[in-house]
Amino acid sequence: MRRIKLLLAYEGTRFAGWQTQKADRTVQATVEAALAKIHGHPVPVVGAGRTDAGVHATGQAAHFDTDRDSLPAGRFVDALNGNLPHDVRAIKSEEADPDFHARFQAVLRVYRYYIYNVPIGLPHLRHYTWRLRPRLEIEALNRYAALLCGRHDFTSFTASGDPAESKVRTIQTSAFSRQGDFIVYHIAAPSFLWRMVRTIVGTIVDCALAGTSEADFRRILDARDRLAAGRTAPARGLFLEEVRYGEAGEKKGNNDEDDEDDRK
Amino acid sequence: MRRIKLLLAYEGTRFAGWQTQKADRTVQATVEAALAKIHGHPVPVVGAGRTDAGVHATGQAAHFDTDRDSLPAGRFVDALNGNLPHDVRAIKSEEADPDFHARFQAVLRVYRYYIYNVPIGLPHLRHYTWRLRPRLEIEALNRYAALLCGRHDFTSFTASGDPAESKVRTIQTSAFSRQGDFIVYHIAAPSFLWRMVRTIVGTIVDCALAGTSEADFRRILDARDRLAAGRTAPARGLFLEEVRYGEAGEKKGNNDEDDEDDRK
Repeated sequence: MRRIKLLLAYEGTRFAGWQTQKADRTVQATVEAALAKIHGHPVPVVGAGRTDAGVHATGQAAHFDTDRDSLPAGRFVDALNGNLPHDVRAIKSEEADPDFHARFQAVLRVYRYYIYNVPIGLPHLRHYTWRLRPRLEIEALNRYAALLCGRHDFTSFTASGDPAESKVRTIQTSAFSRQGDFIVYHIAAPSFLWRMVRTIVGTIVDCALAGTSEADFRRILDARDRLAAGRTAPARGLFLEEVRYGEAGEKKGNNDEDDEDDRK
Repeated sequence: MRRIKLLLAYEGTRFAGWQTQKADRTVQATVEAALAKIHGHPVPVVGAGRTDAGVHATGQAAHFDTDRDSLPAGRFVDALNGNLPHDVRAIKSEEADPDFHARFQAVLRVYRYYIYNVPIGLPHLRHYTWRLRPRLEIEALNRYAALLCGRHDFTSFTASGDPAESKVRTIQTSAFSRQGDFIVYHIAAPSFLWRMVRTIVGTIVDCALAGTSEADFRRILDARDRLAAGRTAPARGLFLEEVRYGEAGEKKGNNDEDDEDDRK
Protein backbone atom coordinates (compact mmCIF):
# COMPACT_ATOMS: atom_id res chain seq x y z
CA MET A 1 0.00 0.00 0.00
CA ARG A 2 1.24 3.45 -0.90
CA ARG A 3 -0.03 6.70 0.62
CA ILE A 4 -0.88 9.49 -1.82
CA LYS A 5 -1.10 13.17 -0.91
CA LEU A 6 -3.74 15.05 -2.83
CA LEU A 7 -4.36 18.73 -3.51
CA LEU A 8 -8.01 19.55 -4.21
CA ALA A 9 -10.03 22.56 -5.30
CA TYR A 10 -13.80 22.73 -5.07
CA GLU A 11 -16.73 25.05 -5.34
CA GLY A 12 -18.60 24.56 -2.08
CA THR A 13 -21.93 25.95 -3.32
CA ARG A 14 -23.65 22.65 -3.96
CA PHE A 15 -21.88 20.65 -1.24
CA ALA A 16 -23.01 20.08 2.34
CA GLY A 17 -19.36 20.64 3.30
CA TRP A 18 -16.33 18.34 3.31
CA GLN A 19 -17.26 15.68 5.78
CA THR A 20 -19.42 12.72 4.82
CA GLN A 21 -22.88 12.78 6.34
CA LYS A 22 -25.52 10.32 5.25
CA ALA A 23 -27.78 11.45 2.39
CA ASP A 24 -26.00 14.79 1.87
CA ARG A 25 -23.69 15.54 -1.05
CA THR A 26 -20.25 16.12 0.48
CA VAL A 27 -16.81 16.64 -1.02
CA GLN A 28 -15.34 13.72 0.90
CA ALA A 29 -18.02 11.29 -0.33
CA THR A 30 -17.63 12.63 -3.87
CA VAL A 31 -13.85 12.11 -3.89
CA GLU A 32 -14.26 8.68 -2.29
CA ALA A 33 -16.75 7.71 -5.01
CA ALA A 34 -14.20 8.68 -7.68
CA LEU A 35 -11.43 6.74 -5.87
CA ALA A 36 -13.73 3.71 -5.59
CA LYS A 37 -14.25 3.78 -9.36
CA ILE A 38 -10.50 3.90 -9.95
CA HIS A 39 -9.78 1.11 -7.45
CA GLY A 40 -12.80 -1.16 -7.77
CA HIS A 41 -13.28 -1.07 -4.00
CA PRO A 42 -13.89 1.59 -1.31
CA VAL A 43 -10.97 3.92 -0.56
CA PRO A 44 -11.30 6.30 2.40
CA VAL A 45 -9.88 9.80 2.04
CA VAL A 46 -8.76 12.08 4.90
CA GLY A 47 -8.93 15.84 4.42
CA ALA A 48 -6.94 18.52 6.24
CA GLY A 49 -9.84 20.89 6.84
CA ARG A 50 -13.48 20.00 7.38
CA THR A 51 -14.97 22.92 5.49
CA ASP A 52 -18.64 23.73 6.09
CA ALA A 53 -21.45 23.79 3.53
CA GLY A 54 -20.88 26.51 0.95
CA VAL A 55 -17.22 27.07 1.89
CA HIS A 56 -14.79 26.80 -1.03
CA ALA A 57 -11.29 25.44 -1.38
CA THR A 58 -8.50 26.25 -3.78
CA GLY A 59 -5.91 24.27 -1.81
CA GLN A 60 -7.50 21.56 0.34
CA ALA A 61 -5.01 18.80 1.22
CA ALA A 62 -5.97 15.16 1.68
CA HIS A 63 -4.51 11.67 1.66
CA PHE A 64 -5.55 8.14 0.77
CA ASP A 65 -3.93 4.73 0.50
CA THR A 66 -3.79 2.90 -2.81
CA ASP A 67 -3.09 -0.63 -3.97
CA ARG A 68 -2.78 0.53 -7.57
CA ASP A 69 0.95 -0.17 -7.51
CA SER A 70 1.54 0.42 -11.20
CA LEU A 71 -0.03 3.89 -11.37
CA PRO A 72 2.54 6.70 -10.92
CA ALA A 73 1.48 9.03 -8.08
CA GLY A 74 1.11 12.04 -10.38
CA ARG A 75 -1.35 10.18 -12.61
CA PHE A 76 -4.07 10.13 -9.96
CA VAL A 77 -4.85 13.73 -10.93
CA ASP A 78 -6.13 12.80 -14.38
CA ALA A 79 -7.69 9.55 -13.15
CA LEU A 80 -9.64 11.46 -10.50
CA ASN A 81 -10.64 14.36 -12.74
CA GLY A 82 -12.05 11.87 -15.22
CA ASN A 83 -14.36 10.58 -12.48
CA LEU A 84 -15.15 13.74 -10.51
CA PRO A 85 -18.01 16.18 -11.12
CA HIS A 86 -16.99 19.58 -12.45
CA ASP A 87 -17.23 21.35 -9.09
CA VAL A 88 -14.30 19.38 -7.66
CA ARG A 89 -10.89 19.16 -9.27
CA ALA A 90 -7.77 17.28 -8.28
CA ILE A 91 -4.89 19.73 -8.71
CA LYS A 92 -1.90 17.62 -7.71
CA SER A 93 -1.15 14.10 -6.47
CA GLU A 94 2.16 12.89 -5.10
CA GLU A 95 3.79 10.08 -3.17
CA ALA A 96 3.72 10.61 0.62
CA ASP A 97 5.35 8.88 3.58
CA PRO A 98 3.22 5.96 4.82
CA ASP A 99 2.73 7.83 8.10
CA PHE A 100 1.82 11.16 6.48
CA HIS A 101 -1.50 12.43 7.81
CA ALA A 102 -3.27 15.28 5.98
CA ARG A 103 -5.15 16.39 9.07
CA PHE A 104 -2.92 15.75 12.06
CA GLN A 105 0.37 16.82 10.48
CA ALA A 106 -0.82 20.15 9.06
CA VAL A 107 1.22 22.94 10.65
CA LEU A 108 -0.67 25.85 9.12
CA ARG A 109 -4.07 26.41 7.56
CA VAL A 110 -4.52 29.51 5.41
CA TYR A 111 -7.95 30.94 4.66
CA ARG A 112 -9.09 33.98 2.72
CA TYR A 113 -12.46 35.63 3.07
CA TYR A 114 -13.75 37.81 0.21
CA ILE A 115 -16.01 40.78 0.87
CA TYR A 116 -17.42 42.41 -2.29
CA ASN A 117 -17.79 45.98 -1.08
CA VAL A 118 -20.14 47.43 -3.70
CA PRO A 119 -23.78 48.56 -3.75
CA ILE A 120 -24.66 46.14 -6.56
CA GLY A 121 -22.44 43.20 -7.41
CA LEU A 122 -21.87 41.27 -10.61
CA PRO A 123 -24.03 38.14 -10.47
CA HIS A 124 -21.01 36.04 -11.48
CA LEU A 125 -19.44 36.59 -8.06
CA ARG A 126 -22.51 35.96 -5.90
CA HIS A 127 -21.43 32.47 -4.80
CA TYR A 128 -17.84 33.52 -4.02
CA THR A 129 -18.18 36.71 -1.99
CA TRP A 130 -20.11 38.40 0.78
CA ARG A 131 -21.51 41.53 -0.83
CA LEU A 132 -21.72 44.46 1.53
CA ARG A 133 -23.03 47.83 0.48
CA PRO A 134 -21.61 50.20 3.15
CA ARG A 135 -18.07 51.26 2.40
CA LEU A 136 -15.65 49.63 4.86
CA GLU A 137 -12.39 51.24 5.90
CA ILE A 138 -9.37 48.94 5.83
CA GLU A 139 -7.68 50.79 8.69
CA ALA A 140 -10.64 50.23 11.00
CA LEU A 141 -10.93 46.56 10.06
CA ASN A 142 -7.23 46.03 10.68
CA ARG A 143 -7.29 47.63 14.11
CA TYR A 144 -9.64 44.86 15.25
CA ALA A 145 -7.94 42.13 13.20
CA ALA A 146 -4.54 42.85 14.78
CA LEU A 147 -5.93 42.25 18.26
CA LEU A 148 -6.58 38.60 17.35
CA CYS A 149 -2.98 37.76 16.44
CA GLY A 150 -1.18 35.46 18.85
CA ARG A 151 -2.50 32.96 21.39
CA HIS A 152 -6.03 33.54 22.75
CA ASP A 153 -9.09 31.72 23.99
CA PHE A 154 -11.50 32.04 21.06
CA THR A 155 -14.67 30.83 22.78
CA SER A 156 -16.40 34.06 21.75
CA PHE A 157 -15.63 33.32 18.11
CA THR A 158 -16.77 29.74 17.71
CA ALA A 159 -20.20 28.26 17.10
CA SER A 160 -21.68 27.15 20.40
CA GLY A 161 -21.78 23.50 19.34
CA ASP A 162 -17.99 23.21 18.98
CA PRO A 163 -16.90 20.07 20.86
CA ALA A 164 -13.22 21.05 21.27
CA GLU A 165 -12.10 20.86 24.90
CA SER A 166 -9.74 23.80 24.63
CA LYS A 167 -10.77 26.90 22.73
CA VAL A 168 -7.22 28.30 22.76
CA ARG A 169 -5.79 28.88 19.29
CA THR A 170 -2.76 30.71 17.92
CA ILE A 171 -3.31 33.08 15.01
CA GLN A 172 -0.24 33.82 12.90
CA THR A 173 -1.78 36.17 10.35
CA SER A 174 -4.92 38.27 10.61
CA ALA A 175 -5.09 41.15 8.13
CA PHE A 176 -7.46 42.84 5.71
CA SER A 177 -6.44 44.36 2.40
CA ARG A 178 -8.37 46.17 -0.31
CA GLN A 179 -8.11 44.75 -3.83
CA GLY A 180 -10.22 46.87 -6.13
CA ASP A 181 -13.88 46.38 -5.18
CA PHE A 182 -12.92 43.58 -2.80
CA ILE A 183 -11.83 43.47 0.79
CA VAL A 184 -9.81 40.34 1.43
CA TYR A 185 -9.23 38.94 4.91
CA HIS A 186 -6.16 36.73 5.22
CA ILE A 187 -6.02 34.51 8.28
CA ALA A 188 -3.57 31.72 9.06
CA ALA A 189 -3.28 29.44 12.09
CA PRO A 190 -2.24 25.86 12.86
CA SER A 191 -5.88 25.07 13.51
CA PHE A 192 -9.25 26.76 13.93
CA LEU A 193 -12.43 26.25 15.89
CA TRP A 194 -15.77 25.55 14.21
CA ARG A 195 -16.99 28.58 12.20
CA MET A 196 -14.20 30.63 13.76
CA VAL A 197 -13.14 32.49 10.62
CA ARG A 198 -16.71 33.37 9.68
CA THR A 199 -17.52 34.54 13.21
CA ILE A 200 -14.39 36.69 13.24
CA VAL A 201 -15.25 38.27 9.88
CA GLY A 202 -18.89 38.89 10.82
CA THR A 203 -17.96 40.40 14.16
CA ILE A 204 -15.22 42.63 12.78
CA VAL A 205 -17.59 43.92 10.09
CA ASP A 206 -20.28 44.58 12.70
CA CYS A 207 -17.77 46.45 14.87
CA ALA A 208 -16.44 48.48 11.93
CA LEU A 209 -19.98 49.52 10.95
CA ALA A 210 -20.88 50.38 14.55
CA GLY A 211 -17.60 52.17 15.27
CA THR A 212 -16.86 49.92 18.25
CA SER A 213 -13.74 50.93 20.22
CA GLU A 214 -10.70 48.66 20.32
CA ALA A 215 -11.23 48.29 24.07
CA ASP A 216 -14.78 47.03 23.47
CA PHE A 217 -13.56 44.64 20.79
CA ARG A 218 -11.02 43.27 23.24
CA ARG A 219 -13.86 42.77 25.71
CA ILE A 220 -15.65 40.58 23.16
CA LEU A 221 -12.58 38.34 22.99
CA ASP A 222 -12.17 38.33 26.79
CA ALA A 223 -15.84 37.50 27.39
CA ARG A 224 -15.34 33.91 26.15
CA ASP A 225 -18.99 33.97 25.20
CA ARG A 226 -20.33 33.55 21.67
CA LEU A 227 -23.20 35.92 22.51
CA ALA A 228 -20.70 38.74 23.03
CA ALA A 229 -19.58 38.57 19.38
CA GLY A 230 -21.42 39.56 16.21
CA ARG A 231 -22.97 37.74 13.28
CA THR A 232 -21.46 34.81 11.38
CA ALA A 233 -20.35 35.90 7.91
CA PRO A 234 -21.86 33.76 5.11
CA ALA A 235 -19.99 30.63 4.03
CA ARG A 236 -19.81 31.66 0.37
CA GLY A 237 -17.02 34.23 0.92
CA LEU A 238 -14.64 31.75 2.56
CA PHE A 239 -11.84 29.89 0.77
CA LEU A 240 -9.45 27.32 2.22
CA GLU A 241 -6.41 28.41 0.29
CA GLU A 242 -3.48 26.40 1.59
CA VAL A 243 -2.53 23.74 4.09
CA ARG A 244 1.12 23.69 5.05
CA TYR A 245 3.10 20.75 6.39
CA GLY A 246 6.37 20.69 8.32
CA GLU A 247 9.63 19.03 7.34
CA ALA A 248 9.59 15.27 6.95
CA GLY A 249 9.91 13.59 10.33
CA GLU A 250 8.28 16.50 12.17
CA LYS A 251 5.68 14.37 13.81
CA LYS A 252 2.90 16.61 14.99
CA GLY A 253 2.77 20.07 13.49
CA ASN A 254 -0.49 21.06 15.10
CA ASN A 255 0.78 22.80 18.19
CA ASP A 256 -2.53 23.78 19.70
CA GLU A 257 -4.21 21.97 22.54
CA ASP A 258 -6.82 20.26 20.49
CA ASP A 259 -6.05 19.09 17.00
CA GLU A 260 -9.42 17.50 16.49
CA ASP A 261 -11.22 20.62 15.44
CA ASP A 262 -10.00 22.10 12.24
CA ARG A 263 -13.45 23.09 11.09
CA LYS A 264 -14.56 26.54 10.04
CA MET B 1 -44.51 57.94 -20.91
CA ARG B 2 -40.83 58.22 -20.06
CA ARG B 3 -38.04 56.15 -21.63
CA ILE B 4 -35.56 54.60 -19.18
CA LYS B 5 -32.05 53.42 -20.11
CA LEU B 6 -30.93 50.38 -18.20
CA LEU B 7 -27.53 48.83 -17.54
CA LEU B 8 -27.68 45.09 -16.84
CA ALA B 9 -25.29 42.35 -15.75
CA TYR B 10 -26.11 38.68 -15.97
CA GLU B 11 -24.63 35.26 -15.67
CA GLY B 12 -25.60 33.56 -18.91
CA THR B 13 -25.12 30.00 -17.67
CA ARG B 14 -28.75 29.19 -17.01
CA PHE B 15 -30.24 31.41 -19.70
CA ALA B 16 -31.13 30.47 -23.27
CA GLY B 17 -29.63 33.81 -24.28
CA TRP B 18 -31.05 37.33 -24.29
CA GLN B 19 -33.91 37.12 -26.73
CA THR B 20 -37.31 35.81 -25.74
CA GLN B 21 -38.18 32.44 -27.22
CA LYS B 22 -41.22 30.54 -26.10
CA ALA B 23 -40.67 28.07 -23.26
CA ASP B 24 -36.98 28.93 -22.75
CA ARG B 25 -35.67 30.99 -19.85
CA THR B 26 -34.22 34.14 -21.41
CA VAL B 27 -32.81 37.34 -19.93
CA GLN B 28 -35.26 39.51 -21.86
CA ALA B 29 -38.30 37.56 -20.60
CA THR B 30 -36.89 37.61 -17.05
CA VAL B 31 -36.40 41.39 -17.06
CA GLU B 32 -39.82 41.88 -18.64
CA ALA B 33 -41.40 39.75 -15.89
CA ALA B 34 -39.78 41.97 -13.25
CA LEU B 35 -40.92 45.12 -15.06
CA ALA B 36 -44.45 43.71 -15.30
CA LYS B 37 -44.49 43.21 -11.51
CA ILE B 38 -43.38 46.80 -10.96
CA HIS B 39 -45.91 48.20 -13.42
CA GLY B 40 -48.88 45.87 -13.09
CA HIS B 41 -48.96 45.38 -16.87
CA PRO B 42 -46.58 44.09 -19.55
CA VAL B 43 -43.57 46.31 -20.35
CA PRO B 44 -41.39 45.34 -23.32
CA VAL B 45 -37.63 45.81 -23.00
CA VAL B 46 -35.18 46.28 -25.88
CA GLY B 47 -31.57 45.13 -25.42
CA ALA B 48 -28.47 46.35 -27.25
CA GLY B 49 -26.95 42.93 -27.85
CA ARG B 50 -28.76 39.66 -28.36
CA THR B 51 -26.30 37.46 -26.50
CA ASP B 52 -26.50 33.70 -27.08
CA ALA B 53 -27.16 30.98 -24.51
CA GLY B 54 -24.35 30.84 -21.95
CA VAL B 55 -22.86 34.23 -22.91
CA HIS B 56 -22.47 36.64 -20.00
CA ALA B 57 -22.88 40.38 -19.67
CA THR B 58 -21.34 42.88 -17.31
CA GLY B 59 -22.60 45.87 -19.28
CA GLN B 60 -25.64 45.05 -21.40
CA ALA B 61 -27.66 48.17 -22.27
CA ALA B 62 -31.44 48.17 -22.67
CA HIS B 63 -34.41 50.50 -22.67
CA PHE B 64 -38.08 50.42 -21.75
CA ASP B 65 -40.96 52.88 -21.45
CA THR B 66 -42.66 53.52 -18.14
CA ASP B 67 -45.89 55.12 -16.94
CA ARG B 68 -44.65 55.13 -13.35
CA ASP B 69 -44.35 58.92 -13.41
CA SER B 70 -43.58 59.35 -9.73
CA LEU B 71 -40.65 56.91 -9.59
CA PRO B 72 -37.28 58.67 -10.08
CA ALA B 73 -35.33 57.03 -12.94
CA GLY B 74 -32.52 55.87 -10.66
CA ARG B 75 -34.93 53.99 -8.39
CA PHE B 76 -35.71 51.38 -11.04
CA VAL B 77 -32.42 49.68 -10.09
CA ASP B 78 -33.62 48.70 -6.62
CA ALA B 79 -37.18 48.05 -7.81
CA LEU B 80 -35.88 45.66 -10.46
CA ASN B 81 -33.31 43.93 -8.24
CA GLY B 82 -36.04 43.22 -5.73
CA ASN B 83 -37.93 41.33 -8.44
CA LEU B 84 -35.11 39.75 -10.44
CA PRO B 85 -33.48 36.36 -9.82
CA HIS B 86 -29.90 36.46 -8.52
CA ASP B 87 -28.29 35.74 -11.88
CA VAL B 88 -29.46 39.08 -13.33
CA ARG B 89 -28.77 42.45 -11.76
CA ALA B 90 -29.79 45.94 -12.75
CA ILE B 91 -26.66 48.08 -12.35
CA LYS B 92 -27.94 51.50 -13.36
CA SER B 93 -31.13 53.15 -14.57
CA GLU B 94 -31.44 56.66 -15.95
CA GLU B 95 -33.75 58.94 -17.86
CA ALA B 96 -33.28 58.74 -21.65
CA ASP B 97 -34.55 60.75 -24.59
CA PRO B 98 -37.92 59.47 -25.80
CA ASP B 99 -36.26 58.49 -29.09
CA PHE B 100 -33.27 56.75 -27.49
CA HIS B 101 -32.94 53.20 -28.82
CA ALA B 102 -30.64 50.76 -27.00
CA ARG B 103 -30.09 48.65 -30.07
CA PHE B 104 -30.15 50.96 -33.08
CA GLN B 105 -28.24 53.85 -31.52
CA ALA B 106 -25.34 51.85 -30.13
CA VAL B 107 -22.12 53.08 -31.75
CA LEU B 108 -19.79 50.50 -30.23
CA ARG B 109 -20.13 47.07 -28.65
CA VAL B 110 -17.24 45.84 -26.53
CA TYR B 111 -16.73 42.16 -25.77
CA ARG B 112 -14.08 40.26 -23.84
CA TYR B 113 -13.36 36.59 -24.18
CA TYR B 114 -11.57 34.78 -21.34
CA ILE B 115 -9.29 31.82 -22.00
CA TYR B 116 -8.06 30.08 -18.84
CA ASN B 117 -4.72 28.77 -20.05
CA VAL B 118 -3.90 26.14 -17.43
CA PRO B 119 -3.76 22.33 -17.38
CA ILE B 120 -6.29 22.14 -14.52
CA GLY B 121 -8.56 25.04 -13.66
CA LEU B 122 -10.24 26.11 -10.45
CA PRO B 123 -13.83 24.83 -10.56
CA HIS B 124 -15.07 28.30 -9.57
CA LEU B 125 -14.17 29.65 -13.00
CA ARG B 126 -15.58 26.84 -15.13
CA HIS B 127 -18.68 28.78 -16.23
CA TYR B 128 -16.73 31.96 -17.03
CA THR B 129 -13.77 30.81 -19.08
CA TRP B 130 -12.66 28.50 -21.84
CA ARG B 131 -10.00 26.35 -20.25
CA LEU B 132 -7.24 25.36 -22.65
CA ARG B 133 -4.32 23.22 -21.59
CA PRO B 134 -1.69 23.96 -24.31
CA ARG B 135 0.26 27.10 -23.60
CA LEU B 136 -0.70 29.84 -26.06
CA GLU B 137 1.70 32.58 -27.13
CA ILE B 138 0.26 36.09 -27.06
CA GLU B 139 2.47 37.23 -29.94
CA ALA B 140 1.15 34.49 -32.22
CA LEU B 141 -2.47 35.19 -31.27
CA ASN B 142 -2.03 38.90 -31.89
CA ARG B 143 -0.50 38.40 -35.33
CA TYR B 144 -3.82 36.86 -36.43
CA ALA B 145 -5.99 39.22 -34.39
CA ALA B 146 -4.42 42.31 -35.97
CA LEU B 147 -5.39 41.12 -39.46
CA LEU B 148 -9.06 41.44 -38.52
CA CYS B 149 -8.94 45.13 -37.63
CA GLY B 150 -10.72 47.46 -40.02
CA ARG B 151 -13.47 46.82 -42.54
CA HIS B 152 -13.86 43.28 -43.88
CA ASP B 153 -16.42 40.78 -45.09
CA PHE B 154 -16.71 38.38 -42.14
CA THR B 155 -18.74 35.64 -43.85
CA SER B 156 -16.06 33.12 -42.83
CA PHE B 157 -16.54 34.08 -39.19
CA THR B 158 -20.28 33.89 -38.77
CA ALA B 159 -22.61 30.99 -38.12
CA SER B 160 -24.11 29.82 -41.41
CA GLY B 161 -27.65 30.71 -40.31
CA ASP B 162 -26.93 34.43 -39.97
CA PRO B 163 -29.68 36.29 -41.82
CA ALA B 164 -27.76 39.57 -42.25
CA GLU B 165 -27.70 40.72 -45.85
CA SER B 166 -24.24 42.22 -45.64
CA LYS B 167 -21.47 40.41 -43.79
CA VAL B 168 -19.21 43.48 -43.83
CA ARG B 169 -18.26 44.73 -40.39
CA THR B 170 -15.69 47.19 -39.04
CA ILE B 171 -13.53 46.04 -36.15
CA GLN B 172 -11.99 48.81 -34.07
CA THR B 173 -10.11 46.74 -31.52
CA SER B 174 -8.91 43.15 -31.78
CA ALA B 175 -6.15 42.25 -29.32
CA PHE B 176 -5.11 39.52 -26.90
CA SER B 177 -3.35 40.11 -23.60
CA ARG B 178 -2.10 37.79 -20.89
CA GLN B 179 -3.38 38.45 -17.36
CA GLY B 180 -1.86 35.86 -15.05
CA ASP B 181 -3.28 32.46 -16.00
CA PHE B 182 -5.75 34.10 -18.36
CA ILE B 183 -5.62 35.17 -21.96
CA VAL B 184 -8.12 37.92 -22.59
CA TYR B 185 -9.35 38.83 -26.06
CA HIS B 186 -10.67 42.36 -26.38
CA ILE B 187 -12.81 43.08 -29.41
CA ALA B 188 -14.88 46.16 -30.19
CA ALA B 189 -17.03 47.02 -33.19
CA PRO B 190 -20.21 48.97 -33.97
CA SER B 191 -21.94 45.64 -34.58
CA PHE B 192 -21.18 41.95 -35.00
CA LEU B 193 -22.52 39.01 -36.93
CA TRP B 194 -24.05 35.97 -35.23
CA ARG B 195 -21.41 34.02 -33.25
CA MET B 196 -18.71 36.17 -34.84
CA VAL B 197 -16.63 36.70 -31.70
CA ARG B 198 -16.71 33.03 -30.74
CA THR B 199 -15.81 31.94 -34.28
CA ILE B 200 -12.93 34.41 -34.35
CA VAL B 201 -11.58 33.19 -30.99
CA GLY B 202 -11.94 29.50 -31.90
CA THR B 203 -10.29 30.00 -35.27
CA ILE B 204 -7.40 32.07 -33.92
CA VAL B 205 -6.74 29.44 -31.22
CA ASP B 206 -6.83 26.67 -33.84
CA CYS B 207 -4.41 28.62 -36.04
CA ALA B 208 -2.06 29.37 -33.12
CA LEU B 209 -1.97 25.68 -32.14
CA ALA B 210 -1.41 24.58 -35.73
CA GLY B 211 1.17 27.28 -36.48
CA THR B 212 -0.84 28.57 -39.45
CA SER B 213 0.92 31.29 -41.42
CA GLU B 214 -0.46 34.82 -41.53
CA ALA B 215 -1.00 34.40 -45.27
CA ASP B 216 -3.13 31.31 -44.66
CA PHE B 217 -5.10 33.10 -41.96
CA ARG B 218 -5.78 35.91 -44.41
CA ARG B 219 -6.99 33.28 -46.88
CA ILE B 220 -9.58 32.15 -44.30
CA LEU B 221 -10.94 35.69 -44.15
CA ASP B 222 -10.84 36.07 -47.93
CA ALA B 223 -12.62 32.74 -48.49
CA ARG B 224 -15.95 34.16 -47.23
CA ASP B 225 -16.84 30.62 -46.26
CA ARG B 226 -17.55 29.45 -42.72
CA LEU B 227 -16.02 26.08 -43.59
CA ALA B 228 -12.64 27.75 -44.12
CA ALA B 229 -12.50 28.88 -40.47
CA GLY B 230 -12.00 26.84 -37.29
CA ARG B 231 -14.13 25.85 -34.34
CA THR B 232 -16.56 28.07 -32.44
CA ALA B 233 -15.20 28.88 -28.98
CA PRO B 234 -17.62 28.00 -26.15
CA ALA B 235 -20.16 30.61 -25.06
CA ARG B 236 -19.08 30.54 -21.40
CA GLY B 237 -15.87 32.56 -22.00
CA LEU B 238 -17.68 35.49 -23.64
CA PHE B 239 -18.73 38.68 -21.85
CA LEU B 240 -20.61 41.65 -23.28
CA GLU B 241 -18.75 44.33 -21.39
CA GLU B 242 -19.95 47.65 -22.69
CA VAL B 243 -22.27 49.28 -25.18
CA ARG B 244 -21.37 52.80 -26.16
CA TYR B 245 -23.69 55.50 -27.48
CA GLY B 246 -22.91 58.66 -29.39
CA GLU B 247 -23.63 62.24 -28.42
CA ALA B 248 -27.25 63.22 -27.97
CA GLY B 249 -28.81 63.91 -31.33
CA GLU B 250 -26.46 61.60 -33.18
CA LYS B 251 -29.20 59.65 -34.84
CA LYS B 252 -27.79 56.39 -35.97
CA GLY B 253 -24.45 55.32 -34.54
CA ASN B 254 -24.39 51.95 -36.13
CA ASN B 255 -22.44 52.71 -39.26
CA ASP B 256 -22.39 49.24 -40.76
CA GLU B 257 -24.56 48.05 -43.60
CA ASP B 258 -26.87 45.99 -41.49
CA ASP B 259 -27.74 47.01 -37.99
CA GLU B 260 -30.17 44.18 -37.47
CA ASP B 261 -27.62 41.63 -36.45
CA ASP B 262 -25.85 42.46 -33.27
CA ARG B 263 -25.78 38.89 -32.07
CA LYS B 264 -22.74 36.91 -31.02
